[in-house]
Amino acid sequence: MIKVSSYKNNNIHTYGLGATVAMEYLLKNRGSVEAVIIHPDFRSEETIARINDICGKDIPVSVEEKPFNILSKKDNCFVIAVIRKQEIRIKDGNHMVLVNPSNCGNLGTIVRSCLGFGVNDIAVVGKTAADPFDPRTIRASMGACASVRIEVFETFGEYSSRFPSNKLYPFMLDGSKILQQTKIEKPFSLIMGNEATGLDPAFKDIGQPIRIEHSDNIDSLNITIAASIGLYEATKSCE
Amino acid sequence: MIKVSSYKNNNIHTYGLGATVAMEYLLKNRGSVEAVIIHPDFRSEETIARINDICGKDIPVSVEEKPFNILSKKDNCFVIAVIRKQEIRIKDGNHMVLVNPSNCGNLGTIVRSCLGFGVNDIAVVGKTAADPFDPRTIRASMGACASVRIEVFETFGEYSSRFPSNKLYPFMLDGSKILQQTKIEKPFSLIMGNEATGLDPAFKDIGQPIRIEHSDNIDSLNITIAASIGLYEATKSCE
Repeated sequence: MIKVSSYKNNNIHTYGLGATVAMEYLLKNRGSVEAVIIHPDFRSEETIARINDICGKDIPVSVEEKPFNILSKKDNCFVIAVIRKQEIRIKDGNHMVLVNPSNCGNLGTIVRSCLGFGVNDIAVVGKTAADPFDPRTIRASMGACASVRIEVFETFGEYSSRFPSNKLYPFMLDGSKILQQTKIEKPFSLIMGNEATGLDPAFKDIGQPIRIEHSDNIDSLNITIAASIGLYEATKSCE
Repeated sequence: MIKVSSYKNNNIHTYGLGATVAMEYLLKNRGSVEAVIIHPDFRSEETIARINDICGKDIPVSVEEKPFNILSKKDNCFVIAVIRKQEIRIKDGNHMVLVNPSNCGNLGTIVRSCLGFGVNDIAVVGKTAADPFDPRTIRASMGACASVRIEVFETFGEYSSRFPSNKLYPFMLDGSKILQQTKIEKPFSLIMGNEATGLDPAFKDIGQPIRIEHSDNIDSLNITIAASIGLYEATKSCE
């Protein structure tokens, strides 16, 4: 049996918290699920039957309360999927590139938008970037993490040298072209910076810096919104 | 002196929590600020000097710790603006219409996007909708609430009968037209539903229902993202 412990980024396991997230992993990435734990108070017989059906004989399903106390204090969470972390390499094609994202919730929300707009390869750049395997990331993605490829790079150079044919579009508040007036060419890399500090000014000289035009009444758009608008526009204009 | 108490929606005051939010109110909506409270541990002399400068003789500024314990337990908050709630009527023009939003954070994030895309009139519909005056809404808006008009309507009919010339665009998962292929006409009303349940099916027969095309791999986009993409596209195609 797998012993559940509070998540740390050097664990070999992570956790899908909540029935929706656990089910996404069972349906989209079953091979990574090593166990499912159900809360004794969980009353949705239909969901329990589905979980047991999908898990079959090879994924153990247990009913316990303690893991929920360890992993999910306040959330409305009745199912935990124990997930083995897998090192995955992103593939050629269109990419979302997140440089030093600091917040797991934002990272997960962007992963969900990526999946929604068919950009299934996501690079996370930076040694101190938010952890794509953190249960908070997975939860914010509503399980979308089960369906995309996410790879962590230590530096932007490490990323860009592996994908020399990608068109690079750093999103910057002072980008020289306006997204509203730009045709994004494929294969694209939409590059987003940190929530508080944005991208380093050095990105001005990389590819085609882009800004999303907005009024002077706000400093910037929320990063999850900027990334999603970028995805919307880039996948639209490539049709 | 104004006695601070934990916020309830029938209070005559609300609170702008944090220096950024408080400063937005002082700069954009000074007339609504009745007092400013600074935490004894706040060390940014420059911000304190600016606050005192803007407040002048008519807005009292005090240094106290207790209000922070009442209003902001965990947040990194050193300044509170005490704001008198004002009943405001939205004006003719382009509108964001939020029907039964349930989460103050989402409401505030959408308000910020509205301000960013120049849609400064926001209708919140529903008796149990999230409170636009809640300090959590104001905080999530990063103070954008100071700069827009927000009006609460009990029913959608009450809203729509006051703005008969607005083109109505309900955003629905099964909307008959795709946003990516639709020219949004002015003056527009972008209508968004509840986070969990969306809009009532009756909206199918109202105006031109719109869907944002996305892959089948996600059920729906996050509401703040759907609303922001709608704003982005509507303000772009109207240029």
